[in-house]
Amino acid sequence: MNFDKLPEEAASRLDWLGSYGEDPEGGVSRLLYSKAWVEGQNALKGWMEEIGLEAKFDEIGNLFGTLKGKNTNETVLTGSHVDTVKNGGKYDGAYGIIAGILAIKYLKETYGEPLRNIEVVSMAEEEGSRFPYAFWGSKNIVGLAKREEVENIKDFEGIPFVEAMKNVGFGFRDESKGMREDLKAFVEVHVEQGSVLETEKIPVGVVNNIVGQRRYTVEITGEANHAGTTPMGYRKDAMYAASQMVYEIISMCKEEGDPLVTTVGKIEAQPSIVNVVPGKAIFTIDVRHTEKEAIVSFTEKMTARMEAISKEHGVETNIDLWMDADPVPMDQKVVELIEKQCKENGLTFKLMHSGAGHDSQIFAPAVPTAMLFVPSLKGISHNPAEFTEPADLAEGVKALIGALYELGYKE
Amino acid sequence: MNFDKLPEEAASRLDWLGSYGEDPEGGVSRLLYSKAWVEGQNALKGWMEEIGLEAKFDEIGNLFGTLKGKNTNETVLTGSHVDTVKNGGKYDGAYGIIAGILAIKYLKETYGEPLRNIEVVSMAEEEGSRFPYAFWGSKNIVGLAKREEVENIKDFEGIPFVEAMKNVGFGFRDESKGMREDLKAFVEVHVEQGSVLETEKIPVGVVNNIVGQRRYTVEITGEANHAGTTPMGYRKDAMYAASQMVYEIISMCKEEGDPLVTTVGKIEAQPSIVNVVPGKAIFTIDVRHTEKEAIVSFTEKMTARMEAISKEHGVETNIDLWMDADPVPMDQKVVELIEKQCKENGLTFKLMHSGAGHDSQIFAPAVPTAMLFVPSLKGISHNPAEFTEPADLAEGVKALIGALYELGYKE
Repeated sequence: MNFDKLPEEAASRLDWLGSYGEDPEGGVSRLLYSKAWVEGQNALKGWMEEIGLEAKFDEIGNLFGTLKGKNTNETVLTGSHVDTVKNGGKYDGAYGIIAGILAIKYLKETYGEPLRNIEVVSMAEEEGSRFPYAFWGSKNIVGLAKREEVENIKDFEGIPFVEAMKNVGFGFRDESKGMREDLKAFVEVHVEQGSVLETEKIPVGVVNNIVGQRRYTVEITGEANHAGTTPMGYRKDAMYAASQMVYEIISMCKEEGDPLVTTVGKIEAQPSIVNVVPGKAIFTIDVRHTEKEAIVSFTEKMTARMEAISKEHGVETNIDLWMDADPVPMDQKVVELIEKQCKENGLTFKLMHSGAGHDSQIFAPAVPTAMLFVPSLKGISHNPAEFTEPADLAEGVKALIGALYELGYKE
Repeated sequence: MNFDKLPEEAASRLDWLGSYGEDPEGGVSRLLYSKAWVEGQNALKGWMEEIGLEAKFDEIGNLFGTLKGKNTNETVLTGSHVDTVKNGGKYDGAYGIIAGILAIKYLKETYGEPLRNIEVVSMAEEEGSRFPYAFWGSKNIVGLAKREEVENIKDFEGIPFVEAMKNVGFGFRDESKGMREDLKAFVEVHVEQGSVLETEKIPVGVVNNIVGQRRYTVEITGEANHAGTTPMGYRKDAMYAASQMVYEIISMCKEEGDPLVTTVGKIEAQPSIVNVVPGKAIFTIDVRHTEKEAIVSFTEKMTARMEAISKEHGVETNIDLWMDADPVPMDQKVVELIEKQCKENGLTFKLMHSGAGHDSQIFAPAVPTAMLFVPSLKGISHNPAEFTEPADLAEGVKALIGALYELGYKE
């Protein structure tokens, strides 16, 4: 295969797809079932057909493009989600679809009919940006999405999910039917959304695990007091306790070392007045690791430490665990096969975990699944400044070509 | 004098004044130049006249009630501000006016004509709650208020200051005239707004100093990153640096000991998303002490420590000092005279500083000034739950009677 034009081809196709939903306020806003979303999916369908794939939507709006194989009852799937966050970038999700179509195009041109169907999917939704529901696309493919979960939800303008879906010609999947049985593997290509590959100057990441995460809201109740008239010894300063907790739990996390990460992304003092000692302090914690036991062990230590600090300060602390997702390992065989292919094709790669959630975590329990990453400039994502060098985009597609060849053409 | 009825008299007069501006949402809202404010001032004028004082407004709406003395060119002034914050309490400000009128009433009934004029003032404004301007009342009395400072300010409904003032019949002071020359002393009675007197079970505080304060806004700039995909070693977490700063500066303040106080009342992470490492953290600091040098020395240490922490974290920190008010000592002679009177009259009192700002700090540079405090339940102020026991209200009035007798009747 001649990959000379691949960098430019991948980059210009990303620009092209990014033009659907181009937002006057910056970046791309291609929210589920919006006009831009419909036009983007239809444009992708046209391109799939142009290169000779059989293209069709499922009931809810996932778009599939299939290169038929000899064994039509076996399918190797690739792709990602077509929706973006509001004012998102051109790469998140989109790159997985473009890479999938380009890979199949090259495979078809070079090797013709595969042994198994090779299929690319442009999934309806993953971000949860328009409605308070994420992974609508992948959860429908594997049969996890339930009608009742979206029947009463609305977007920020008050438009009901069901109305938005029906308005653009889609409806619910028949939930009495099981999941399709032809899927033999799923390989998702995605931008890293982190800066590991960029920093280490490695173009391809082979993902062996998606981290688990726990999210907490911590609410500390002390006593609001006048900042001038309350001597330090009289105070129950919720902010003082909070600052010690935040500082210590992040320090503890750093001591534990990679791949543990801990983030306090939101914090608030109440009543939030410069000259009032805060009676309340509220902050969030996001903890992630590739191993469930590591998450459990760290969060137990973290919670105990916060409780001890709370006691020392004489304040009340409520620690609310509101998200607890286990790590999702990728399929070992598919990962090894991708590693082997990368080596054979002379691609530089790194075995790594994903610190972010992806459609692959929905697929993995049902279908042998793996992921490929390419670098993200400065790790920026969900932002108009998302960028990946065209040369790196090409390396990701090449890695995917190798993977799909292995999975789709070989016995 | 028979003080048997004084506790009930003081408490019921506070209820009476609190009925002007009673807010359906709770507490008292008697904002400058509002209908409730006008009615409250007029009601006070009526009461002053009822007990035989000569009552009149100045140009801007400060209300004075005078018990004429033999030397009409010498005046001893007492009183406080009639305005409240929105949904404030019945005691802040109001108590100083009620106490002043009651004290003069008792003095007049017992001793008749004084040597000097004894005057009570119900000052127009101190809180800065309606317009972004505080101490309008006292600053006009001592000649510090300038027309140009309020000519372009508006309230939260967009009503210009000048329009609000003229609508209720007031206008600007003649700034070409100097400050009145008859003022020999000012004694303000006020609720403590802290819990020192309550905790120590002492009914009267004699204030010898009003704290100075410095206020800062600290803005830390790190790098916003994905909470999952950014290993700890790659982060420039503004919130991590902020938590260490907040924890350490409050700890440093506690080590220094009373009367130093340090408060972080507001804090914010940006972009304030649970799964994004904050690229910015912004918080406020309020530092107070009775000695200027102590404020300077602590804030220098504090600033140096924050700069060092900033460097350790590899973030940028901007420390903006936007308020720098020196401590205001009360007049030593007036303070000693009040102490002497309290002892002679068997009142239990404590020499203390004020951690909050008061009209007295505006008077002090121009007129020999002192303050008296009574306990505030749990230190609560600027809140409908403000409360002082009637017995304590009476002790404050008694201390004021002693002070005014000393200042107004003696050679």
